[in-house]
Amino acid sequence: MRHSFKLPGTVEWKNGELYFLDQTMLPLETVSEKQETAEQVWDSIKRLKVRGAPAIGIAGAYGLVVGMRNKQVLPASLFIEELYKCAEYLNSSRPTAVNLSWALNRMVNKAKVSGLADSAALYDLLVQEAESIHAEDRAICDGIGKYGAELIREGCGVLTHCNAGALATSGIGTATAPLYTAHLQGRRFRVFSDETRPLLQGSRLTSWELQRAGIDVTLICDNMAASIMAKGEIDLVIVGTDRVAANGDVANKIGTLGVAVAAKHFGIPFYVACPSSTVDLDTALGGDIEIEERDAEEVTSFGAKRTAPDGIKVCNPAFDVTPNELVTGIITEKGIIKAPYKEALINMFRK
Amino acid sequence: MRHSFKLPGTVEWKNGELYFLDQTMLPLETVSEKQETAEQVWDSIKRLKVRGAPAIGIAGAYGLVVGMRNKQVLPASLFIEELYKCAEYLNSSRPTAVNLSWALNRMVNKAKVSGLADSAALYDLLVQEAESIHAEDRAICDGIGKYGAELIREGCGVLTHCNAGALATSGIGTATAPLYTAHLQGRRFRVFSDETRPLLQGSRLTSWELQRAGIDVTLICDNMAASIMAKGEIDLVIVGTDRVAANGDVANKIGTLGVAVAAKHFGIPFYVACPSSTVDLDTALGGDIEIEERDAEEVTSFGAKRTAPDGIKVCNPAFDVTPNELVTGIITEKGIIKAPYKEALINMFRK
Repeated sequence: MRHSFKLPGTVEWKNGELYFLDQTMLPLETVSEKQETAEQVWDSIKRLKVRGAPAIGIAGAYGLVVGMRNKQVLPASLFIEELYKCAEYLNSSRPTAVNLSWALNRMVNKAKVSGLADSAALYDLLVQEAESIHAEDRAICDGIGKYGAELIREGCGVLTHCNAGALATSGIGTATAPLYTAHLQGRRFRVFSDETRPLLQGSRLTSWELQRAGIDVTLICDNMAASIMAKGEIDLVIVGTDRVAANGDVANKIGTLGVAVAAKHFGIPFYVACPSSTVDLDTALGGDIEIEERDAEEVTSFGAKRTAPDGIKVCNPAFDVTPNELVTGIITEKGIIKAPYKEALINMFRK
Repeated sequence: MRHSFKLPGTVEWKNGELYFLDQTMLPLETVSEKQETAEQVWDSIKRLKVRGAPAIGIAGAYGLVVGMRNKQVLPASLFIEELYKCAEYLNSSRPTAVNLSWALNRMVNKAKVSGLADSAALYDLLVQEAESIHAEDRAICDGIGKYGAELIREGCGVLTHCNAGALATSGIGTATAPLYTAHLQGRRFRVFSDETRPLLQGSRLTSWELQRAGIDVTLICDNMAASIMAKGEIDLVIVGTDRVAANGDVANKIGTLGVAVAAKHFGIPFYVACPSSTVDLDTALGGDIEIEERDAEEVTSFGAKRTAPDGIKVCNPAFDVTPNELVTGIITEKGIIKAPYKEALINMFRK
């Protein structure tokens, strides 16, 4: 698919050089940083300059390429040894990011099973494999966009929460893919972006990337969504997800459940968009997903400014679980999956 | 009712002097400012050092006392003339605050119809009238507390939104009155305080005043309420209101509707607490209440720090309307009003 707007360049591989868009500077500054060493890539992932599950995987794969570039002088056996070390090192930048370890393992295995005895050839293979991971991600985003765009009718209003956008992938995003695709198809519609407390991914990232692409986007506080639904301004909700359980329960950024409940109340379809790989058949129920509790400071302070009393107790779960009965459908690159989810998700993988 | 904890001293009249707690400094500093002139009172109301409908009314009434203090040397006719001017002036600090104009009118009328020909006696009458308004507010809060406390069971979890607390009144608040009363009765329970974007009244004010009173309070982002309800941690919601329509629809701080919808979904009782004077029988339906749209900056910036892209469109309604079918009951100083609201609210005023 050709895009008439320029994607943000979350992770870019140009003329043998790696660039990350520094997302910690958004929306105030758009800074693309060349990544010269594995150490710099490690630091960029650690500091959330690159974020979003698919983007981190791709960043790690190219990070391994960057890290191995000046190791081509080594004999092949030592090159492979260094490759393991470099992959392990890069994985330690965000040990809980499933996509990162998945991409690094894939890279290492590719080299290992190749049987190549020449380090320069091994290096070229790593470049190819990183480019494949990159291309596959773009294709998955395009697939989600193709199926999801059919839901976006002319003149409709779409609500999204957090950032499952181009900034979280190397393509047109997951939750945003239907929006970008419908936009390219010439349909006009309005998007409402929840700001997404406490880290404001909606105001900092989603509203930035949609605005930049020329999509009509309005920023709201999370607690305004129900009111805007009540006014009839929302026809459809699309959010991303970090993990889909085998029964169709969905873990996503905190606040997603509240949006789903409100959508149900107002009779608004609630869709989840994700690569099929986000479905984890080994997780039976949403209740089995462990929810990370994050630092209280995220809620009690804003930058250096404290906004809550000292010593106040805080709850700060990073995610919540939306039960399958609130999910109208799951938009994947293989099509839109609908209830009954257990059977439909197994069938999706059989395809 | 005697309080074993000290109220915050939102508006205090001590030894003939007026003090306001500067709420713009909370929760970082607790500063009580003596109000020396009508101009200073005007400024304090304008800058939201005093906020909350009942508190503003009381502040205005005492502000008139402060403004007239050195006018006692005037002949009575000139004193009354100056009283009108001062009331008009103070009212201009927040022209849309119904309680402010109500309190100022009540003060002026009291003096006018008294027939007193002595300015010092008129001044004393103003002091008495301000003290009456003050005492009535405290009694109303206590009444709400008395009825509402019966809903707070040992060990239960209560969610509140925004600040309808002691800081918004001169007594134990409206939505907080049942909490303070149950606390004084020795019951243990947990309160969850929504931070209440964009202005964070929940984190800055509600969590501060409940913590200070020794109540077990946990601060959450607005978008966490549904998730915490899903975990079974909330047994009851109590919020304040700015206006109740004749049919029981309730206007309150933005985000209240989302809380009410989630409470309904999870089968949790949703109560609104307010003085009976907040019920406006002249407003037939919630849809008739005009919703103030506030400055986009409140959503796009935090202090001096911008958090959203330049030129982004924003919705920032100050209030939303919760329809009567989501309201389990309205806790007033006259008792707890339940559906059918139209009849019940008329009967309440007949009592």
